[in-house]
Amino acid sequence: MTKGKLLLLALFFSITAHAEDGYKLWLGYKPVSDQRKLESYRNLVKGWVVDNNSPTGEVARRELRMGLEGLLGHPVQEVGAVQADGMIIAGTFNSPILARMNLHDQFKNTGEEGYALFSGTIANQKVTVIAGANERGMLYGVFHFLRLLQTHQSIDALSLESSPNTKIRILNHWDNLDRTIERGYAGFSLWNWHKLPGYIDPRYHDYARANASIGINGTVLTNVNANALILTPMYLEKVAAMADLFRPYGIKVYLTARFSAPMQLGGLPTADPLNAEVQQWWKDKAREIYQYVPDFGGFTVKADSEGQPGPHNYKRNHAEGANMLAEALAPFGGIVMWRAFVYSNESPIDRTKQAYNEFKSLDGKFRSNVMVQVKNGPLDFQPREPFHPLFGGMPSTPLIMEFQITQEYLGQATSLAYLAPLYKEVLDADTYSEGKGSTVGKIVDGSLEGHTLTGMAGVANIGNDRNWSGHPIAQSNWYAFGRLAWDHTLSSEKIADEWVRMTFNNTPEVVNTLRDIMIASREIVVKYMTPLGLHHIMGWSHHYGPAPWIKDKPRADWTSVYYHRADEKGIGFNRSASGSNALEQYHPPVRKIYNELAGCPEEYLLWFHHVDWDHKMKSGRTLWDELCHAYQSGVDSVKWMRHQWNTLESKIDEVQFTHVKSLLDIQHEEAVWWRNACLIYFQTFSKKPIPAEIERPGKTLEYYQSLEFPFAPGIRPRW
Amino acid sequence: MTKGKLLLLALFFSITAHAEDGYKLWLGYKPVSDQRKLESYRNLVKGWVVDNNSPTGEVARRELRMGLEGLLGHPVQEVGAVQADGMIIAGTFNSPILARMNLHDQFKNTGEEGYALFSGTIANQKVTVIAGANERGMLYGVFHFLRLLQTHQSIDALSLESSPNTKIRILNHWDNLDRTIERGYAGFSLWNWHKLPGYIDPRYHDYARANASIGINGTVLTNVNANALILTPMYLEKVAAMADLFRPYGIKVYLTARFSAPMQLGGLPTADPLNAEVQQWWKDKAREIYQYVPDFGGFTVKADSEGQPGPHNYKRNHAEGANMLAEALAPFGGIVMWRAFVYSNESPIDRTKQAYNEFKSLDGKFRSNVMVQVKNGPLDFQPREPFHPLFGGMPSTPLIMEFQITQEYLGQATSLAYLAPLYKEVLDADTYSEGKGSTVGKIVDGSLEGHTLTGMAGVANIGNDRNWSGHPIAQSNWYAFGRLAWDHTLSSEKIADEWVRMTFNNTPEVVNTLRDIMIASREIVVKYMTPLGLHHIMGWSHHYGPAPWIKDKPRADWTSVYYHRADEKGIGFNRSASGSNALEQYHPPVRKIYNELAGCPEEYLLWFHHVDWDHKMKSGRTLWDELCHAYQSGVDSVKWMRHQWNTLESKIDEVQFTHVKSLLDIQHEEAVWWRNACLIYFQTFSKKPIPAEIERPGKTLEYYQSLEFPFAPGIRPRW
Repeated sequence: MTKGKLLLLALFFSITAHAEDGYKLWLGYKPVSDQRKLESYRNLVKGWVVDNNSPTGEVARRELRMGLEGLLGHPVQEVGAVQADGMIIAGTFNSPILARMNLHDQFKNTGEEGYALFSGTIANQKVTVIAGANERGMLYGVFHFLRLLQTHQSIDALSLESSPNTKIRILNHWDNLDRTIERGYAGFSLWNWHKLPGYIDPRYHDYARANASIGINGTVLTNVNANALILTPMYLEKVAAMADLFRPYGIKVYLTARFSAPMQLGGLPTADPLNAEVQQWWKDKAREIYQYVPDFGGFTVKADSEGQPGPHNYKRNHAEGANMLAEALAPFGGIVMWRAFVYSNESPIDRTKQAYNEFKSLDGKFRSNVMVQVKNGPLDFQPREPFHPLFGGMPSTPLIMEFQITQEYLGQATSLAYLAPLYKEVLDADTYSEGKGSTVGKIVDGSLEGHTLTGMAGVANIGNDRNWSGHPIAQSNWYAFGRLAWDHTLSSEKIADEWVRMTFNNTPEVVNTLRDIMIASREIVVKYMTPLGLHHIMGWSHHYGPAPWIKDKPRADWTSVYYHRADEKGIGFNRSASGSNALEQYHPPVRKIYNELAGCPEEYLLWFHHVDWDHKMKSGRTLWDELCHAYQSGVDSVKWMRHQWNTLESKIDEVQFTHVKSLLDIQHEEAVWWRNACLIYFQTFSKKPIPAEIERPGKTLEYYQSLEFPFAPGIRPRW
Repeated sequence: MTKGKLLLLALFFSITAHAEDGYKLWLGYKPVSDQRKLESYRNLVKGWVVDNNSPTGEVARRELRMGLEGLLGHPVQEVGAVQADGMIIAGTFNSPILARMNLHDQFKNTGEEGYALFSGTIANQKVTVIAGANERGMLYGVFHFLRLLQTHQSIDALSLESSPNTKIRILNHWDNLDRTIERGYAGFSLWNWHKLPGYIDPRYHDYARANASIGINGTVLTNVNANALILTPMYLEKVAAMADLFRPYGIKVYLTARFSAPMQLGGLPTADPLNAEVQQWWKDKAREIYQYVPDFGGFTVKADSEGQPGPHNYKRNHAEGANMLAEALAPFGGIVMWRAFVYSNESPIDRTKQAYNEFKSLDGKFRSNVMVQVKNGPLDFQPREPFHPLFGGMPSTPLIMEFQITQEYLGQATSLAYLAPLYKEVLDADTYSEGKGSTVGKIVDGSLEGHTLTGMAGVANIGNDRNWSGHPIAQSNWYAFGRLAWDHTLSSEKIADEWVRMTFNNTPEVVNTLRDIMIASREIVVKYMTPLGLHHIMGWSHHYGPAPWIKDKPRADWTSVYYHRADEKGIGFNRSASGSNALEQYHPPVRKIYNELAGCPEEYLLWFHHVDWDHKMKSGRTLWDELCHAYQSGVDSVKWMRHQWNTLESKIDEVQFTHVKSLLDIQHEEAVWWRNACLIYFQTFSKKPIPAEIERPGKTLEYYQSLEFPFAPGIRPRW
């Protein structure tokens, strides 16, 4: 694929040369480079105290010590009391030094994990106060304060408070017990189960620090395609060790529950959720788990989906399945996150309609400690999908949003794709469920429908690659997920800006150039993979690379032709009233936007309509010509990203620079591959020439169809 | 298994605290701590020049620059010519500055990879010369010179030369294309095939540096249980990228060849080595490979063994199979390393006899570019085995020694076991093939039988764990393998001493304490796993933990009872003349040592004899009591290791200290597990009491038999 010059570039970079290898994420705490800012910070930060002696206080203490020393370029004194100007006081509303300030009254809308950050006076001395409603709030405030310095913000007249929009801000690790990761593109699982609990990898602490720094407060350690062994004592002892070490960072541990566990582990003849023995088995199991992990968070469950066992095996519905587990967890305060990602094995119905059809009628039937976990779109984490119609469709049920941080369908290990714009597109989408302004975000944060159990789950992109996320820029997706789970009103630009400053540096050229690349990047991937509403035409099973020709697989809806429906007349999946009518699952104003071919926004055109090759697009081109131009524009835009990135040489760390440069070269080749493969394949239907201004595909369709990737990462390993 | 206190210990160690994480191996180049030595070095090393402009010269230049700066605590000037005292001149015998010294005559016995290192005079200035016969020799000399400083040796009157004992010093990576590693206990494969050739992980360079530093000059990138895909263009392009980057470090790339590749890739109906089309296919394939990798090393082949295809499928013998491949490689200078690790699927013959039986008669029938690769012992990398009878049994064939560096049978991920004593025990063993003094070492280095194609292969213990080898002390086995492949006369103590000084520090207490632990460690593992000649009683398939009760498996020789043969009368495998007579494969003086129960060295007793429970041992105890004491002594010795290690607290890096401490706690629990499981199992045969002075097994046999480890590392992953 790529060339010898890369070898030369990389030849003499080795970690021993003190280069940045990405391990420190956005917490590198490099010295403040702006001298005026640095002077100002040094005046305002002469000493600090963490006025809290919990284990979380100790975490905050360590972070402040390390962060301030790194940022200010010298150790900053830890003090016992306020005896001079320039002290930083971190504590809770109740902590000894802060108690007399009456913070509870002052910040009465600050929820339990919230914090206030303000400049004030104590004992006639000017101080900066970081006050959390509880110690987790305090820790979040400490990270916020450090972020202000990392991003060169002013701290001389602080007055802000912050609380999370959602209660459960959680990562889903699709990590198997053998350390492979389903859809993982950054190496293998961080969790070294074999050596737990005896050996605690120091990296677990850095994982927890990174999560705490962006407000993530939960982690599901195991794959949704679950193995019941995790619920046995041998593994629970290991889980307990993880929970113990994550606790001071404010992170609760959750597990995936395999629905058939009562049979596999308990030897029962059934896993029927209405069977008393089964119910009792789960109650006993819950009690056992809480003996190991007193603050265990609960279960994430994938049931009756893609081969996983579930209540349907016993002719019970999802509510009956979820409620049984919820009942077992309730005495201990645990919750169930029951995934709505289900589709029938036989159903001839448009797959995008099935989850709604299954769950809509169950609205209101779930126990209060159940959340239904809904993917952002109705299909499966495509580069672009409309929002899932269950948002706005289950007002009586708390829905937890499931985003995918790992780039299963967005270029995997080798593509730069900043996903905040994707997340925001969904969160800002208007469901019209209670009239205009009924955004998905307001449903997720509970404000629209009055839920207090709220949350956002992100399928992690973290593995044991040294830099955690494989692609250096993919770290920003972990960061963006956490920031949006805390506050979904933040803009993609703001988050990218923060992340670049914290991860690389504050040089305006670096910040502006990289932020612009990032903001454009997801749309670029859409362009060269699935423009105009196309979807799910990736490689069979591993989802790597283009394969719009996939057909004749065990299920129609695991093929590409099911989704693009190209024929001599045109291309696209008619989900309007004249087709599968998936649109009927949306509220009328939404239907109206998409139902008519004429007015349908073009980025969703082929999602909702089967369109003639000669259909006239807004550009004046025919659909076929527009498709060709879209693919070409995707390729051209990757070239633009590469050009822009190359202007950063010598402005950021050399190892990081070279790493991304190599990957952008690969991404360019992959974009060309996508364009060529898709255009010459779709051309067999359109029978139209590729416009002269588009680059010619260099190879034949047969060549592209012959490519195989049996060891593409992120799939079940074979041998 | 282990307790909360470990959590506390580990709580605040994170890499961001600038701790040592083991990444730098023995090449950390920490400042010389002995002030007198430091002064002396600074006087003798005021500048340096690498008088060679090859890519290898560039590697040497970088290493000297980095090494000297680290060791001497300040940058040392690179000069263009000798104009003052205290210059280090690195070059080849021919290089411009050194040419007039007539080094070719002076060091005429120094082979092409050798070097001389001496104090001398150039242009009336005192200099230190590092002169390689070729540039690889120069690079080895540079590492030798740096090692002298790392280990605080005197450098003021140097006069030494060194050449390797063997020609092929090679690692065997049992790495699969999906990045799992068969018998790997340090994470997953370093080779990120998916991103190659476009992205070159800087870690590949550090891998190459580490190998070059100990003289390793070859690497087999793929598993002996081979996948033919590695021979396809898509992968060869990736292999070429690896070969390009390893070349400057003097490392050649080799691959494993799947014998059935002509059928799988070429579509031929047969892989018969005498078939002309098959022969032509391999010739064409070899030519193709050399187009990608002009200095390709050759093939390692596992054929007709454990399910791998081979010449037996066509009623051809191993020589016919190997020679066909060798013929294809010969025009390009490649070699075949054909493994002798074969045993029949049906044969009722003692498995330890089968390789000899198959290969002995083929002696002299192999092409000159074939080596037969023989494991150190006749079974399979046990904690202790007698040497393989093929050493001394095939005088007309070059044999390459195969050692296992990865600890498949020696405690895997969690045990401290320094293996140089195991390697040395074999290399120093006397085969008596040409009379007394016919050691295995002299056969391997070619001196006894007059071979020039010589080598030593080590099954690597390297994975993507940050510290390369998982257990911090396991790095020493990689180091020791390389050092012994270069010079098998080095002592285990000398190698341990070097490694400790280079890896940790030169403090006498650290050096002495850790060296003593290391030297004892392998015998300790033997004691608590397989004392007195017991063997292969580990867990089924994954080989983790004790399982002497394994029986009724697809093959008898994959069970434990096949090997220990315990019954009411006694225990052990009779391989003497009255038993399987495996001893007949050895030369008479060796037979004599082991054949009689009375005189047989007790460490091999149960390997060669079935011995009554009441047999009186040298200690005066019965065999049963001796066995009990051996297991107990193994456990006690782990406690001793732990105690000794704990005296090093604060004398070595804290993260490294805690890591090994945690693992020694695990090892102690595993030793107890071994003792308990084996004693109560063997007691069901001996029917004798466990002596009062031995700790009581706390659990039942049923408990130990119930333990399962489906996700033990190093096996084929499942999902």
